[in-house]
Amino acid sequence: MSDSSQDWLPKVDLDSEAVIEEDYSLAPELVETVREMLEEERIDSVQQVLEPLHVADVADLLEYLTKDELQLVIKGLWSFIDSEVLTYLDAAVREEVIDLLGPRQLARAVSELDSDDAVEVFEDLDEEAQHRILSRLPQAYRTLLEESLTYPEDSAGRLMQREMVVIPSAWSVGETIDHMRESDDLPDDFYDLFIVNPKHKPIGFVPLSRVLRTKRPVRLTEIMDTELKLIPLTMNEEDVAYTFRQYGLVSAPVVDEVGRLVGVITIDDVVRVIDEVAEEDLMKLGGLGESDLYNDFLETVRARSPWLVVNLGTAILASLVIGLFEGTIEKVVALAVLMPIVASMGGNAGTQTLTVAVRALAMKDLSSANAWRFINKELVVGVFNGVLFAVITGALAWYWFGRPEIGLVIGAAMVVNLIVAGLGGTLIPIGLDRVGVDPAIASTVFLTTVTDVIGFFAFLGLAAAFLM
Amino acid sequence: MSDSSQDWLPKVDLDSEAVIEEDYSLAPELVETVREMLEEERIDSVQQVLEPLHVADVADLLEYLTKDELQLVIKGLWSFIDSEVLTYLDAAVREEVIDLLGPRQLARAVSELDSDDAVEVFEDLDEEAQHRILSRLPQAYRTLLEESLTYPEDSAGRLMQREMVVIPSAWSVGETIDHMRESDDLPDDFYDLFIVNPKHKPIGFVPLSRVLRTKRPVRLTEIMDTELKLIPLTMNEEDVAYTFRQYGLVSAPVVDEVGRLVGVITIDDVVRVIDEVAEEDLMKLGGLGESDLYNDFLETVRARSPWLVVNLGTAILASLVIGLFEGTIEKVVALAVLMPIVASMGGNAGTQTLTVAVRALAMKDLSSANAWRFINKELVVGVFNGVLFAVITGALAWYWFGRPEIGLVIGAAMVVNLIVAGLGGTLIPIGLDRVGVDPAIASTVFLTTVTDVIGFFAFLGLAAAFLM
Repeated sequence: MSDSSQDWLPKVDLDSEAVIEEDYSLAPELVETVREMLEEERIDSVQQVLEPLHVADVADLLEYLTKDELQLVIKGLWSFIDSEVLTYLDAAVREEVIDLLGPRQLARAVSELDSDDAVEVFEDLDEEAQHRILSRLPQAYRTLLEESLTYPEDSAGRLMQREMVVIPSAWSVGETIDHMRESDDLPDDFYDLFIVNPKHKPIGFVPLSRVLRTKRPVRLTEIMDTELKLIPLTMNEEDVAYTFRQYGLVSAPVVDEVGRLVGVITIDDVVRVIDEVAEEDLMKLGGLGESDLYNDFLETVRARSPWLVVNLGTAILASLVIGLFEGTIEKVVALAVLMPIVASMGGNAGTQTLTVAVRALAMKDLSSANAWRFINKELVVGVFNGVLFAVITGALAWYWFGRPEIGLVIGAAMVVNLIVAGLGGTLIPIGLDRVGVDPAIASTVFLTTVTDVIGFFAFLGLAAAFLM
Repeated sequence: MSDSSQDWLPKVDLDSEAVIEEDYSLAPELVETVREMLEEERIDSVQQVLEPLHVADVADLLEYLTKDELQLVIKGLWSFIDSEVLTYLDAAVREEVIDLLGPRQLARAVSELDSDDAVEVFEDLDEEAQHRILSRLPQAYRTLLEESLTYPEDSAGRLMQREMVVIPSAWSVGETIDHMRESDDLPDDFYDLFIVNPKHKPIGFVPLSRVLRTKRPVRLTEIMDTELKLIPLTMNEEDVAYTFRQYGLVSAPVVDEVGRLVGVITIDDVVRVIDEVAEEDLMKLGGLGESDLYNDFLETVRARSPWLVVNLGTAILASLVIGLFEGTIEKVVALAVLMPIVASMGGNAGTQTLTVAVRALAMKDLSSANAWRFINKELVVGVFNGVLFAVITGALAWYWFGRPEIGLVIGAAMVVNLIVAGLGGTLIPIGLDRVGVDPAIASTVFLTTVTDVIGFFAFLGLAAAFLM
C-alpha cells in the first residue's frame, strides 16, 4: 500500500504517531514506548497510552510484556482496564494476570462479565480459587455460574450465554419492539429473536433485520424461520462450530434434555472455538499439545519433552531395524549413504496424505461414505509416485555408485515405502478416528514410525537378499 | 449421548430414518441411498431426498458423489437445487458442477446470488468463460461484478457484498425503521446500520439490537458507535479476518481510496476465510499446496510431486553429507545404525518450535516486539533438551555398543543439533516472514534440510575426529 493512501485510514488519536498499524495490529513502537515508560516508572503515561485503545489491543499489549512489566501494569492500572480484557488474553497470560489480582479484584472483574465470558475465566482456576471467587459474587449470578460449570468442558453449555431475548409465540412485531425498548436486562449484542412455546421450547427464530423490515401488527410466528438448528447442552464445541459454519449461523439456541431453551451461543464465541480447534490440530500435527508461545521456559520444556521422548522411541526402533543389517552395511557402505532417502520420502509422502485426511476428518468432509474412495485414490497415488521416484532415485544411485543393482534395490524399496506411506497416511487417521482417538494427536508418530521402519527394512532387506 | 436423548433432537422429516446426524453431519446411509437411487436411475426419488435438505447439506451430498453420479444429479435435478449451493461447494467439486452446467444455466444461477457469492464463483473461471457468463447478465449487475473482479484476489474488495443498508446522518430511529419497512432491495441479512455523512463516508454504526431498543424520535447519530473499524478495499483477506476476530465484529464497512463506503463484509464470509487460511497453513506445513481431498488422481499427483521432488533434493543433500564419511562408517558400522536418531530428534524438536512460530506469525502474536524473547527462550529450550537427550541417548548408545566414546559422540551431536533446531525453528520462519515469504510454505523444507545436514555432519564428523 502506498504512503499516500494512509491518510484516509483510521488513526488512533494518540497525538504523536499511529499506535495501531494499517492492518490493525499493534505497532511494535507502542510496545517499546510502554516498556520505556515502565522502566522509568511513569505509570501515568502508560495509563494515557492504554486509555484510547480497544480492549483487544490492550490484551495484545499485555501479552507482549515480560512478567515484571505485566506486574507493574496490573498492580498500578487494573482499575483503568476493562475487565473484559480477561477474555481476550491468551490462557497463559490470563493465568498470570489472575495470579496478580487478589480474589476481591477478580470477583469484581468476573461480576462485570457476561456469563459465557465469566465461565471461560473460571475454567482455568483450580477448585479452591473458583470457590473463593464464587463466594464473593451476588447469589443469582453465582448460581448461574455454578450451573454452567457443571456442564462438561468444551461443551455447548460452557460456551453459551444465559442472557438472551426470548419472545412468547403470541407477540407481534410491535409488542416485541415495545418490550425491548422498556426492558433493561437484555444482552449487549444479539442477532436473532427466539420464539418459544408455552413449554419454553424454541419453535422458530427471526433475524433482527427481518423484525426491522416488518410492520408492527404482524405476528412474529408469521415471519419466523422454523428451520431451527438446536444445540444440545452437551454438544461438543467442535460440533457447535461445525453447525454454525455449515448453516451460516450468527446465533443458535441451546436446549436442555427436554428441549427447553436455556441459552444462546453467538458467532463471536464460535470464531474463538474455530481458531482454537484449528490451532490445536496444527500443534498436534507439529508434535505439541498446544501453542506455548507465552509459556515460560520450564512450562515449555515440560510440555514438549514427552513428545520428544516418544520420537526418541520410534527413532530407536528404526535404529534397531538398521542394526539387523549391520553385516550388510559393513560390506556395502553405499547402503548407509542412501538409506535415509527411502525413509525420508516415505515420511514426506505419508505426511501429505495424512494432513489431508486429518483436516478432512476434522471438517467432517471424510466419512464412511467416501473413505474407500479416498484410500483407493491414495493407493494409486502411492503406486504412481513410488514408480516415478523409484526411477529417479534408482538412476541416481546407479550413477553415483556405478552399480545398477543398487539402483534396482533402492527403486524397489521406494515403491514399497511410498505405497505403505499412502496406505498409512489414510488408514492410520481413519482408524484412530473410528476408535475415538483424535487423529491429529497420534497419527504423525504412528505414520513416521511405519515409514521409517518399512523404509529401512525394505531397502536393507532387499540389499541383503540381492547384493550379498 | 445415550439413545434416549435422541427424541428431543431435531429430525429431518424424511419419513424413514434420520438423514442428518445428531452432530448435523450427513448420515453416510443417506449417501448410500442416493447412490443406489442413481444406479437404478430413480432420479425422482433423489429429488425427494434433496428437497428437505438445507443447501449446505445438499453441497455435502454432491461432494460425496463420483463424477458420473454428480453428472446424473446436475443434469437431471439442477432446476430443483438452490443456486446458492455453488458457494457451499469445495472448489474442485464446484469446478466440475460449473463444467456440467451450460453458460445459460450458469448465468442464471449467478444472477440469483449475492454479489460477494457471485464473485467467488467467478474467480475460478477462466477469462473466456467469465466473459461468456457476464454477457448474459443484466447490465447493472454485470457492471457491479466486473468492478469487483478488478480488485486483487483475496482482497476485501472481492469479499465484500455491495448490497447494504446506508443511513444518512440526519435520520431518526423511526425514520430508519419506516424506510426499511418500505424498501425492498435490502440485503438478505445484515447486522449493523452504517451511518454516512453527505460525502458518503462512514461516521459510525449502530447494531440492529440497539436500533430495536431505542425509541423512535432518537437520532441514530446519538446512539451510534464511532469506533469504526474501516476496511480498505485492498486489504488482504487475512487481515480482514484478523480485524473481525480482534474486535469481535459481525460486519464491517469497506471504503475506497477517498474513504467512501462501497460495501460491507459480514461475519459469514470471514468465517470462510478463517477456515481457508487455517487449512492452507496446515497443508503447507504438511508439504502440500492445498487440500486435494476432492481432486482426482492426476490433479493430486501433479500438485504433490513438486514437493516430493524438493524433499528428494534435501534427502540427497543429507546423503552427500553421509557420503563424506563413508570411510568412517566402514570402520565403525554402529554409526550407520545410530545416525538417524540425531537427525530425527533435530527434525522433530525443530518442527515443534517452527509450528508455534508459524501459527503465532499468522495470528500476529509474534512481531518484532517479542521476537527476541521468543528466540531466546527457544535457544534455552534447545540447550536444555539437547543436554537431556544427549544423556539419555549417550547412555543408550554406550550400553548398546559397549563403547563409551560412541555415547559421548552421539551426545555431543545431539546437543549441537537440538540447539540448531531451536534456532532454525525460530529464525527461519521469522526471517522468511520479514522478507515477505509465507513462512508456512517454505519453513519446513528449510528446517529439515538444516537439521538433517547438521545432524549427520555433527555426528559423523565428531566420530571421524574422535573415534578414528
